Amino acid sequence: MTQPSPTFHAEDFEKPDGRELTLYGLEPVRVESEIPTPGDPVQARPVMRWHPLRSEWVMYAAHRLNRTFLPPPDYNPLAPIQEGGHPTELPRGVYDLAVFENRFPSLTLDAPEPEPVQGAVVRAGVGRCEVVVFSQSPEGRLADLTPGQMTLLIEVWADRTTRLAATGKIRSVLAFENRGVEVGVTLHHPHGQIYAYDHIPPVQARLLDSARGYMEKNGRPWLADFVAGERAAGLRVLHDEGAALSVVPPFARYTYETWVLPARPVALLSDLSAEEKAAFARTLKDALLRLDALFGVRMPYLLTVHQGPVGGDPHPEFPLHIEIYPYLRAPGRMKYLAGTEQGAGEFANDKLPEVAAQELRNLTV
Amino acid sequence: MTQPSPTFHAEDFEKPDGRELTLYGLEPVRVESEIPTPGDPVQARPVMRWHPLRSEWVMYAAHRLNRTFLPPPDYNPLAPIQEGGHPTELPRGVYDLAVFENRFPSLTLDAPEPEPVQGAVVRAGVGRCEVVVFSQSPEGRLADLTPGQMTLLIEVWADRTTRLAATGKIRSVLAFENRGVEVGVTLHHPHGQIYAYDHIPPVQARLLDSARGYMEKNGRPWLADFVAGERAAGLRVLHDEGAALSVVPPFARYTYETWVLPARPVALLSDLSAEEKAAFARTLKDALLRLDALFGVRMPYLLTVHQGPVGGDPHPEFPLHIEIYPYLRAPGRMKYLAGTEQGAGEFANDKLPEVAAQELRNLTV
Repeated sequence: MTQPSPTFHAEDFEKPDGRELTLYGLEPVRVESEIPTPGDPVQARPVMRWHPLRSEWVMYAAHRLNRTFLPPPDYNPLAPIQEGGHPTELPRGVYDLAVFENRFPSLTLDAPEPEPVQGAVVRAGVGRCEVVVFSQSPEGRLADLTPGQMTLLIEVWADRTTRLAATGKIRSVLAFENRGVEVGVTLHHPHGQIYAYDHIPPVQARLLDSARGYMEKNGRPWLADFVAGERAAGLRVLHDEGAALSVVPPFARYTYETWVLPARPVALLSDLSAEEKAAFARTLKDALLRLDALFGVRMPYLLTVHQGPVGGDPHPEFPLHIEIYPYLRAPGRMKYLAGTEQGAGEFANDKLPEVAAQELRNLTV
Repeated sequence: MTQPSPTFHAEDFEKPDGRELTLYGLEPVRVESEIPTPGDPVQARPVMRWHPLRSEWVMYAAHRLNRTFLPPPDYNPLAPIQEGGHPTELPRGVYDLAVFENRFPSLTLDAPEPEPVQGAVVRAGVGRCEVVVFSQSPEGRLADLTPGQMTLLIEVWADRTTRLAATGKIRSVLAFENRGVEVGVTLHHPHGQIYAYDHIPPVQARLLDSARGYMEKNGRPWLADFVAGERAAGLRVLHDEGAALSVVPPFARYTYETWVLPARPVALLSDLSAEEKAAFARTLKDALLRLDALFGVRMPYLLTVHQGPVGGDPHPEFPLHIEIYPYLRAPGRMKYLAGTEQGAGEFANDKLPEVAAQELRNLTV
């Protein structure tokens, strides 16, 4: 197979405080100002501690507590710097998306060994936290990206995953978007984040175990059977592009939980062809538009991109997919994680997935 | 050892819609009105579905969506019924605490087998959801209970666990309190809930695995070494009653996360002696008062009581304890579960546990 011609452009820069910045564009990137940074360098010394009963790591980043919080409308660190204005994170110029290292990271690639603490199992908080700015415009939503820009975002998530794997220090990459003041979002400019871990975190480990068990038992990846089953049932599919589709999964934990899946089972975004990425992007845009149309308000949500492990043996059994957790279970009614969800790890959902899917499918978007 | 004289009184009743009610008192219980119920019987047909990637059950209870929500101040279903007033859940009379089956349960002991659904692994939602009313007074907080009433609550949680185990259908009992409008609490009368599962849910399964591994490796229960270690370190202990103590654990996931532990490792509240229950109750009251004193506001929190499995072999290695997750990480700043917490199962905390413990310890309560 010949290498396709590049579908996007990327240029790397270094910020004055040493952090990395990459600008991505559908057209060639052009910078028309200095590369800014919004304040003094931050000394990040993140650490991890072992939770011996939950058998998981907890991240500590004491420098994060005073991070930028609901700034006044005239200051937006994610907008391009204006002439004579307060320094932001991004330059003026021609580009669509931007990625830079979080100024207040929970994990860094060069985290120093921490001092020992009596009674705690501590280690360096090795990993990486990145900010992904979806657009130069401070207004708008992820769903407002053009199909081309949305496909670029898929390429950017794939590119970051490939780059982070290439550091040799990363085992798992989680891209996500957390949207809505209702759920603590501190900056309204459309953006997401990436957390890259030097180990496989609990959720990904659980998914990998389940997918491996399914493959061993059935000889096929879980995703292949799931997609075929959802198409056959026809009860929960919201949108089907052929190469990608969206469903309310039959085991939805959130009332209007929506998954975006490729039809061909792969573990990583970079495994998708250009055509598959475009179909995946169109399906994602459709899913987000449906959630905003549902109650006629911007649905607060968490969107997470689940990819298989990197930096080790390939895991083709891991099902690449996006999970969207909408936080409204009815107009004006938020879903909170209370006793059973947090205390037992088991979700209570007020509505059957088939009913939720029908409501979402019937919307015109 | 002779049986101690009863430290509390309990009387069972049946509500007009068939639900069970138990009134508990430090003095003998006396009822001075009819046993009310606030509305028509609710047809609960809860079901569970299997999440094949997270390998956990999800509960569906479609009748829950329209449950009582922020009623006007003149209607409080958890207050004793007033003469000529709207029916509530509780009678007038002499008692301190009350427990009844939730009118809108996510699980019931007699849940019927559900119809099959194409593409979903379904089964009956067998279990039990109970409401625990902490006081006849609609004002006040759990922390306002007298030491005697707080000890009674420990007895009530123990008694419910014993009764639920005796049904032969329950494997795990989770008592919890979710407090604060910030986290979706719909009724302000001080109360908690109990979820009883017919299986061991993910969090309890993980804790049990970890505790079993520790016991096999070290020959001692984890809790014994943890308590000795925290006392030796002296960095994170908030209050120590001898038979019980509170700490900010060295692996706290929430900024001011507080654990209440018995000094003697046991798996169930019913394993504690009367004296140990009283010390545990005093330590719990102290911990709650500290959290409210911290920022001078009623701290929104989730409190969960972690007990070992019931209805099977005893698990003395399981560490009985209470975990309190305070949702404020600073004055006016809520902790939300975002990308890394929900998408990866890994928490980011802004403050080291030793610092949080010092702040809580320095308070006068």
